[in-house]
Amino acid sequence: MGKVVAVVGATGAVGRVMLEVLERRGFPVDRLVPLASARSAGGTVRFRGEDVRIESANDFDYTGVDVALFSAGGSVALELAPKVAAAGAVVIDNSSAWRMDPDVPLVVPEVNPEAVKVRPKGIIANPNCSTIQMVVALAPLHREARVRRIIVSTYQAASGKGQAAVTDLKEQAARMLRGEPAAPSVFPGTLAFNVLCDWKAGADDYSEEEWKMVNETRKIMQDDTIGVSPTTVRVPVVHGHAESVYVEFERPLTPARAKELLAHAPGIVLLGDAYAPGNNPQPLLAEGRDEVFVGRIRADLAMPGALNLFVVADNLRKGAATNAVQIAELL
Amino acid sequence: MGKVVAVVGATGAVGRVMLEVLERRGFPVDRLVPLASARSAGGTVRFRGEDVRIESANDFDYTGVDVALFSAGGSVALELAPKVAAAGAVVIDNSSAWRMDPDVPLVVPEVNPEAVKVRPKGIIANPNCSTIQMVVALAPLHREARVRRIIVSTYQAASGKGQAAVTDLKEQAARMLRGEPAAPSVFPGTLAFNVLCDWKAGADDYSEEEWKMVNETRKIMQDDTIGVSPTTVRVPVVHGHAESVYVEFERPLTPARAKELLAHAPGIVLLGDAYAPGNNPQPLLAEGRDEVFVGRIRADLAMPGALNLFVVADNLRKGAATNAVQIAELL
Repeated sequence: MGKVVAVVGATGAVGRVMLEVLERRGFPVDRLVPLASARSAGGTVRFRGEDVRIESANDFDYTGVDVALFSAGGSVALELAPKVAAAGAVVIDNSSAWRMDPDVPLVVPEVNPEAVKVRPKGIIANPNCSTIQMVVALAPLHREARVRRIIVSTYQAASGKGQAAVTDLKEQAARMLRGEPAAPSVFPGTLAFNVLCDWKAGADDYSEEEWKMVNETRKIMQDDTIGVSPTTVRVPVVHGHAESVYVEFERPLTPARAKELLAHAPGIVLLGDAYAPGNNPQPLLAEGRDEVFVGRIRADLAMPGALNLFVVADNLRKGAATNAVQIAELL
Repeated sequence: MGKVVAVVGATGAVGRVMLEVLERRGFPVDRLVPLASARSAGGTVRFRGEDVRIESANDFDYTGVDVALFSAGGSVALELAPKVAAAGAVVIDNSSAWRMDPDVPLVVPEVNPEAVKVRPKGIIANPNCSTIQMVVALAPLHREARVRRIIVSTYQAASGKGQAAVTDLKEQAARMLRGEPAAPSVFPGTLAFNVLCDWKAGADDYSEEEWKMVNETRKIMQDDTIGVSPTTVRVPVVHGHAESVYVEFERPLTPARAKELLAHAPGIVLLGDAYAPGNNPQPLLAEGRDEVFVGRIRADLAMPGALNLFVVADNLRKGAATNAVQIAELL
């Protein structure tokens, strides 16, 4: 039986990909309701070859909606999600607003699918993009050897900051190639041909993005004793986050065994170690793909039984839209 | 008293910067001899406002040369450096050919200046770019607390692979902005709007670049028990390598004490933690600068007394030419 699916924030970077993913994965949509701010309402989005009218997210009557995929930012989610849930829909929210609420499950289907069942607020949170791909890569190893500690450095794409950030990066790059100043508009500094730590500062000089990786990893993996030490960095890439991950386990794990586990794990594409075209994980190879790409799996040189690996995924797909739709598929 | 200074490989990416750095630092050059392959000989390079004739590196008589700065690749260095040293010059070689030879000191002036004194072969090796900036940042902390272990992920610029690689990156970016395929020529894959691990594979699936960071760090810091776990990654940046560094010490170190030590250390610019224009270390801020930029110094969240930091330097300057000229200044 088909579902009535609302997509709140249907015109944003993630919202557009949500529509694509719903369509491509053949999600049983009886009726699609794209919603956006009053400004965008009345326009249309394309879905299964048809133009569908965009409704105003604030004014719409959500009665009869089965699933509402939210990708509209934290403040909209805080205010609107409880109302939509009260109208009877299951809300799957992509913002950070509800993620750490103890009454809201935080779900990555490959890692903790059972968590969707207990949702006292009618809201399920979709984790941060950089967290999702890391826990997908680590979960099969965790089940075997128990992760004790993670040190991760990220290489994050512009699209994580939205559609306007992508335009900003491309315009910066074009200007710099002409020998002109980059003139950043969305990023707080030049990102083209540069790297930035552009997130807001949080406690202890870790950025808010870094704290998300710490807290969300523990919640999803259901173990608050896992140590997570993140350094989040923005690189001049359009789509696709990469992560250099060091991981220690309770029981030692060899690269050979880790590869065996990852080769058969759902949602993972295991790639090689040395560079070869199409071989090791790269953002451009992951673009438009739903899977998490893992490669460069090496025994750590100093800590017996620990591993280093390189993890890449499309931040708008598995890092956002795909994961949200997969949660909806679990329901 | 001035010196006769030969620059072997004067037309390459690093060689050109060596000339600039010799001039800008006021190195006492009595006579400059730029050398290159027979193909480039007869042309000129600009030095102190004058055109200086390029000699053929293989045919030149090196008698009377005091210092020979080599930046001509490993095979030239292997063959030519001993001959030039035999003619009486001190060779400072930027290739990897001599670095791990026990009779060749591997020197970073801020870290192990005394090592220049013992040079039985008349050759001093200049370390790898990614190693230099890391050990400059860590040396003041090592003196106080003794480094036991390093986990490092790099963000390395195209210019580390030479001038043609920079052109390749820019042309790839221009093509992609026009919606065309990147058509890489020097890099083995697309680097523009992507990240690559493009170095040759070495033992245990670590790349040759990663092994350089392991072995050279230990040699420069004179401690083979230091654990080094590197992941080297190329990013679409023209100049300037960045490094996310986790470091454990024998004695715990607080961020406050580390900042105190780094604020007064030679060759280091201490920057802040959160993003602000001109604040945290970025490749574009380091371009054309001789110093190593250190920031984002944070207490590790899982290991008491360990630190995370972010280190940036111009790979052609401190990572190559500047360090070589500073070695010459020590003589």
